Amino acid sequence: MFTISPSLYSADLLNIRQVLRSLEGFEHLHLDVDDGNFVRGISFGMDVIEGVAECTDIPLDAHLEVLNPMDYVAPLARAGVELICAHVEVLDFPSLFLSSVHRYGKKAGLALNIKTPIAYIEPYADQLDQLILVSCEADVDGLPFRRGVLKKLSEARLKLEEHTKIWVDGGVNKSNLRSVVDAGADGVVLGRAVFGSENPVDTYVQLLELGRGYEKERDSNAV
Amino acid sequence: MFTISPSLYSADLLNIRQVLRSLEGFEHLHLDVDDGNFVRGISFGMDVIEGVAECTDIPLDAHLEVLNPMDYVAPLARAGVELICAHVEVLDFPSLFLSSVHRYGKKAGLALNIKTPIAYIEPYADQLDQLILVSCEADVDGLPFRRGVLKKLSEARLKLEEHTKIWVDGGVNKSNLRSVVDAGADGVVLGRAVFGSENPVDTYVQLLELGRGYEKERDSNAV
Amino acid sequence: MFTISPSLYSADLLNIRQVLRSLEGFEHLHLDVDDGNFVRGISFGMDVIEGVAECTDIPLDAHLEVLNPMDYVAPLARAGVELICAHVEVLDFPSLFLSSVHRYGKKAGLALNIKTPIAYIEPYADQLDQLILVSCEADVDGLPFRRGVLKKLSEARLKLEEHTKIWVDGGVNKSNLRSVVDAGADGVVLGRAVFGSENPVDTYVQLLELGRGYEKERDSNAV
Amino acid sequence: MFTISPSLYSADLLNIRQVLRSLEGFEHLHLDVDDGNFVRGISFGMDVIEGVAECTDIPLDAHLEVLNPMDYVAPLARAGVELICAHVEVLDFPSLFLSSVHRYGKKAGLALNIKTPIAYIEPYADQLDQLILVSCEADVDGLPFRRGVLKKLSEARLKLEEHTKIWVDGGVNKSNLRSVVDAGADGVVLGRAVFGSENPVDTYVQLLELGRGYEKERDSNAV
Amino acid sequence: MFTISPSLYSADLLNIRQVLRSLEGFEHLHLDVDDGNFVRGISFGMDVIEGVAECTDIPLDAHLEVLNPMDYVAPLARAGVELICAHVEVLDFPSLFLSSVHRYGKKAGLALNIKTPIAYIEPYADQLDQLILVSCEADVDGLPFRRGVLKKLSEARLKLEEHTKIWVDGGVNKSNLRSVVDAGADGVVLGRAVFGSENPVDTYVQLLELGRGYEKERDSNAV
Amino acid sequence: MFTISPSLYSADLLNIRQVLRSLEGFEHLHLDVDDGNFVRGISFGMDVIEGVAECTDIPLDAHLEVLNPMDYVAPLARAGVELICAHVEVLDFPSLFLSSVHRYGKKAGLALNIKTPIAYIEPYADQLDQLILVSCEADVDGLPFRRGVLKKLSEARLKLEEHTKIWVDGGVNKSNLRSVVDAGADGVVLGRAVFGSENPVDTYVQLLELGRGYEKERDSNAV
Repeated sequence: MFTISPSLYSADLLNIRQVLRSLEGFEHLHLDVDDGNFVRGISFGMDVIEGVAECTDIPLDAHLEVLNPMDYVAPLARAGVELICAHVEVLDFPSLFLSSVHRYGKKAGLALNIKTPIAYIEPYADQLDQLILVSCEADVDGLPFRRGVLKKLSEARLKLEEHTKIWVDGGVNKSNLRSVVDAGADGVVLGRAVFGSENPVDTYVQLLELGRGYEKERDSNAV
Repeated sequence: MFTISPSLYSADLLNIRQVLRSLEGFEHLHLDVDDGNFVRGISFGMDVIEGVAECTDIPLDAHLEVLNPMDYVAPLARAGVELICAHVEVLDFPSLFLSSVHRYGKKAGLALNIKTPIAYIEPYADQLDQLILVSCEADVDGLPFRRGVLKKLSEARLKLEEHTKIWVDGGVNKSNLRSVVDAGADGVVLGRAVFGSENPVDTYVQLLELGRGYEKERDSNAV
Repeated sequence: MFTISPSLYSADLLNIRQVLRSLEGFEHLHLDVDDGNFVRGISFGMDVIEGVAECTDIPLDAHLEVLNPMDYVAPLARAGVELICAHVEVLDFPSLFLSSVHRYGKKAGLALNIKTPIAYIEPYADQLDQLILVSCEADVDGLPFRRGVLKKLSEARLKLEEHTKIWVDGGVNKSNLRSVVDAGADGVVLGRAVFGSENPVDTYVQLLELGRGYEKERDSNAV
Repeated sequence: MFTISPSLYSADLLNIRQVLRSLEGFEHLHLDVDDGNFVRGISFGMDVIEGVAECTDIPLDAHLEVLNPMDYVAPLARAGVELICAHVEVLDFPSLFLSSVHRYGKKAGLALNIKTPIAYIEPYADQLDQLILVSCEADVDGLPFRRGVLKKLSEARLKLEEHTKIWVDGGVNKSNLRSVVDAGADGVVLGRAVFGSENPVDTYVQLLELGRGYEKERDSNAV
Repeated sequence: MFTISPSLYSADLLNIRQVLRSLEGFEHLHLDVDDGNFVRGISFGMDVIEGVAECTDIPLDAHLEVLNPMDYVAPLARAGVELICAHVEVLDFPSLFLSSVHRYGKKAGLALNIKTPIAYIEPYADQLDQLILVSCEADVDGLPFRRGVLKKLSEARLKLEEHTKIWVDGGVNKSNLRSVVDAGADGVVLGRAVFGSENPVDTYVQLLELGRGYEKERDSNAV
Repeated sequence: MFTISPSLYSADLLNIRQVLRSLEGFEHLHLDVDDGNFVRGISFGMDVIEGVAECTDIPLDAHLEVLNPMDYVAPLARAGVELICAHVEVLDFPSLFLSSVHRYGKKAGLALNIKTPIAYIEPYADQLDQLILVSCEADVDGLPFRRGVLKKLSEARLKLEEHTKIWVDGGVNKSNLRSVVDAGADGVVLGRAVFGSENPVDTYVQLLELGRGYEKERDSNAV
């Protein structure tokens, strides 16, 4: 079933403990680990993540936007993060990353920046629990959703096995959610669309229902 | 209409001012900014380009063959260069480059080395005014035109939108011009083929006519 | 007078807003911007710092432990950080960094890792408001204070001008504070020694008094 | 005809001279030049290779798994190595590498790590004597053969010219040899499958016959 | 005797041939090879330098401000450049650079950025024909002369052998020339101070006389 | 007492097992782990070292001339190497390296290339069992001993504690051994001087006696 993983990076970072207490019914919480080198902007590191893991039961997924993802596998797994994803652009040996995560009994995924072709991850189809397709890029006008990703999404859905979940991450909101679901997404990461709204919990529930409705339509059309 | 952009790097670099005075009727002048690291060989930098911009009215296009293209956007735009292209190989965030150039009211393009797949630039189709396909590579025998690029050219023409102009750059001359036009090029960058000839202005005019003739044939065949 | 800048990185990062409210009488607050590449471990980025700057009046100083310090000068200055320090190890052009910070009307400093000789910063003596001597290094046994830094500290004090404040950062605590002051420090950055104590405000005050006492003895001995 | 190139790296490296004496009837010997940076693990360098070339008549092929392959072209050619392959991932200018090798009268090839798309080497089809498709990746469970490479192999066979030999390198053994041949391989590099067996010479002969049998079937089916 | 090497980079780069014709009596001409990566700003490359070497008899010296100085040794020597200097910051093996230049029968030197300690070049004292001490750094206020270099200059003069000439490069002009000569310089590189003046030839002669006057005073005081 | 550690890299690498059998009475055997990137030339990796450790009782010391020394600490210690040295040039955190080696119960050292100042290792004096001063550099004329290192050696002896052994490595032979001992060396690494001689065991014994004789003279003069 279609899922939403709201990104903590868009919440009030000066008040994380209280934010976590307010989140009822979330099925996922997305942790962007951004180093300011692989991407623009530093988010937070293991100190925050260990703290988060201690004070919430929401299943956590980590998206490593860093130059050295191998260094984070052990600490994230030990902190209890359920799904760990790294970018294929910085992994010389994606298999090593994926099997390292699996050895800790966690789900393992790869992520692709907008410019990176799907061809890069095809040889790892059998090891891949998750694919994250980044769908926005820092830009002088902000971080707009780039529709060019929809084609990559369809291609990925076609080439990957069914057990691999595909999430789209970046600039997704109410207005483009249908196109993302229609192109084959199993889920989305949402930042401001959830935490920038007045009531993040309500917004989450509404968008989740919306996404699941689109998914149902898509799947019934596919038959 | 088919265009030719002659590259100043192949002209007499000890005598640029006089070269510029002699160029009548040129519709483009190509400025290779080569840093000797991304490519072999240093060409010239902003001092020369600012000087060129001051003493000619020919519309200028810059091809950044450098490791740090973002650093050149503002100075090139301020100098009055009309079209600014950078290599996708060194841009982590091509959207940021393209939107930065657009914010200055200039045309923005991406360039691809021979080995880089077209797939890299597809997600930016909507932002792309220009694509430069590099078609020669330093080699022990010089800089021969590599016919393998023709296939990439056809693929690019198919996948990019009409508003994106595609130029081929490297080793193009009278003998291979037809194949380049037939494969879908909107223009070519010429170096020695123009500036290495006895009369660059005459050569430019003849090759431009030749190219436009091939283009007409191609387009009428396409109907 | 001897100063202490307690490092927010050692406070409860899930509860920053409340931590800030509890800090009475602090004369400095130290912001470690760690990217997990120049140093091990990611701390926090501009989102947190902008938030901090909005909810406290304590003068802020930033210690950039990142690969790309030039990218942080403008955002830190705009956020109101009073003192901005970067590592000489990653600055090809320290003067450019220092004068950029000064142009924003802020104080500018350089920082040195343990292994880096003092000779590196001597040519910038006239531009230097601050020197941070890092005095601990990640190690299998934690982050012990390394006494080898005391010699560098004395050398720095001798070679730098009086207007340059020298701070020691890493592993300083009650037991080694005197040696640090005696070797010429104008201040220290404290992490767990303050925020790891039961009552950070009391601890801060006590250590500050202690340090100022040592300073007075030192200076009277010097006469 | 199908060929096998056994990799010396899997033989007893403390006893190379004696190993070489024992190898009867080998048609190829594979030399992995691994630098511990492009790949995990250092193998051996020019001193060993020059020694090997002096004491055997088996035709040698070198697989450069190093960051700086251009530095090895001249020494390998001078030592008498017949085929020199480098990774497209680290070659900014593959043509320069290929033509440099050709200038020494040697065969030239490119190699691809598992994640790298075939599209990267297509433009060099006319210059390519050899393609090596790496088919295993360091992983917490060892170096298993990755079946995802078979698809790349078929694609390469389709897109490359007939004169280009395609070898598969990594984790190939008796149990997966047929699938590799069926997908279009002209040969394989074998490590432990040969040198880890009790009698490397017998094993080599048996596997070579097996491979050539599969090849005959494949080619007769293709008609 | 004190020398001045005027830097061509500060002359009119659109008119180099004519500039060269106008230079009478110059004893040196300084060629900055800047790649825009090791330093900010691209100057010119081998095409310009080969052209310069063909149309002037002034002895040429090259200052490689590039990431890959070893690549320039052979082309510069073949073009006839008499003195070739590279930065110790990018040379893992300075001896290899120096002996490569010497093998071509040319003079070899090292250059130091402002921040780099003199200790780096001491072990090469016996191989060193020349030391260039860079004395300005790009800065928001331009490229001011940094007096901190004078101390390094005195230290270098003390530690290097007599056969090593020491030049200061950056921001030197009439007003600080005496301090540079007094601190032990054997020569200076001048940019705008010569080529930015109305009559470069006259300015060159005047400053040279001035410098030689200061030198005579210095040396007679030293006795 | 003065020691010699003969470097296996200079022995017959095609015949290591037999070489090891022939070495009687050696008190040390030096293992250069060279990656062809930090230095020119690949030597050998863990496969060879594990094999060596299994077939000799000579105490082994490893000199990591690689970009990633931290990756070798655990495998070298497990193989039974007694002393592990890495270059300060590539260690961001020398303390972490030294304490990692110590945790395995092995001796830990740092090495310095010729150009690197002694100041870099002073702050680690208390953790340092060993210092290796590299004393030759690849050069167009081979690998000559560079006398500039003697000054660094004297400085190191003065500044380091007594428990730190200082070895000189590169180009040392009968003719310069006395100068090296006189300047304060506790030992030398010898390559061709031992393994290039007709009888390495005899040569080793003779040079060791010679060195110990010089040492005795030096120390009695010092009294």
